[in-house]
Amino acid sequence: MEATSHPAVHPVAVPPQFQGAGPPAIQMKDFPGSPGTAGGLALRFTQFGFSLISLCIMVSIAGFSSVTAFCFLVATMVFQCIWSLCLGALDIYALLTQRSFRNPLIVSLFVVGDWVTSTMTFAGACAAAGITVLIDNDLEQCGPNHCGRFEAAAAMAFMSWTATTLSFCLSFWLLASCR
Amino acid sequence: MEATSHPAVHPVAVPPQFQGAGPPAIQMKDFPGSPGTAGGLALRFTQFGFSLISLCIMVSIAGFSSVTAFCFLVATMVFQCIWSLCLGALDIYALLTQRSFRNPLIVSLFVVGDWVTSTMTFAGACAAAGITVLIDNDLEQCGPNHCGRFEAAAAMAFMSWTATTLSFCLSFWLLASCR
Repeated sequence: MEATSHPAVHPVAVPPQFQGAGPPAIQMKDFPGSPGTAGGLALRFTQFGFSLISLCIMVSIAGFSSVTAFCFLVATMVFQCIWSLCLGALDIYALLTQRSFRNPLIVSLFVVGDWVTSTMTFAGACAAAGITVLIDNDLEQCGPNHCGRFEAAAAMAFMSWTATTLSFCLSFWLLASCR
Repeated sequence: MEATSHPAVHPVAVPPQFQGAGPPAIQMKDFPGSPGTAGGLALRFTQFGFSLISLCIMVSIAGFSSVTAFCFLVATMVFQCIWSLCLGALDIYALLTQRSFRNPLIVSLFVVGDWVTSTMTFAGACAAAGITVLIDNDLEQCGPNHCGRFEAAAAMAFMSWTATTLSFCLSFWLLASCR
């Protein structure tokens, strides 16, 4: 990592010059929201916050575990929380040490991880939303079934998915634009 | 379109030269599966085929319209069929006239359209799968509810989503790599 990551303090218009022989270094230009920037950290905090709220709402509802889709939503929210927290910690490290993630291999890992996480979060949110709509609109048995809280948990999961998708797109763009 | 699209017969190593003044043309390199290639056309046919099968299975089940999520799946499958058919027709036109979609504006439209379509298809498939699992595993009322056919329709929708996501990624990579 030492050999391929460089301090993020170079002006954008003047790329760092490398001494010695070897293949030319790949230039990856950081932009707001990409990994290792303050915008990236804000996105990670947003994802973590929304998924934590969704998780807290779900586990506060007695008997949620009797529906497989709600269990899946809880599992994806736990996974989303852990992923966002880890990546947020990496962003804080990058900001404190004035380094940036310009290594295509590391950015590839972020892209794959973000894609898997966002897909799972979206799947959980859609399944939970589908069942909530079934209970609420189709069966009209909302009284004892806490529909409002299920809807709130699904909505928070959708917000978390939006932020994760944004992270994915920015990382993917960063990766593709260095090729 | 005439001014910005060029024949696809130029060798890759020798980009076409433009006469006269003006900004340098943006180079977009085609690769298998990107819009306007035989691979891209195959992906469109795959999407269309799977979504058509899913649609046919859904509408063959009497009473599917009593569940909102199943209606949503049918709507997304119709949308997916239309989108894939239109893009497939454009691919056929590009192949027949030996042209390629190297215009960033057109590729941007493909990227946005593919993203919207794949997201809707995935949402419909997840909601239908969540409800099928609810009926099958949680409530165990599968006898009169055609679970096998609902599962098959959701599976076909997931296959269609996979092909659409691949189209989206290839178009997005093509767009990002020309910047």
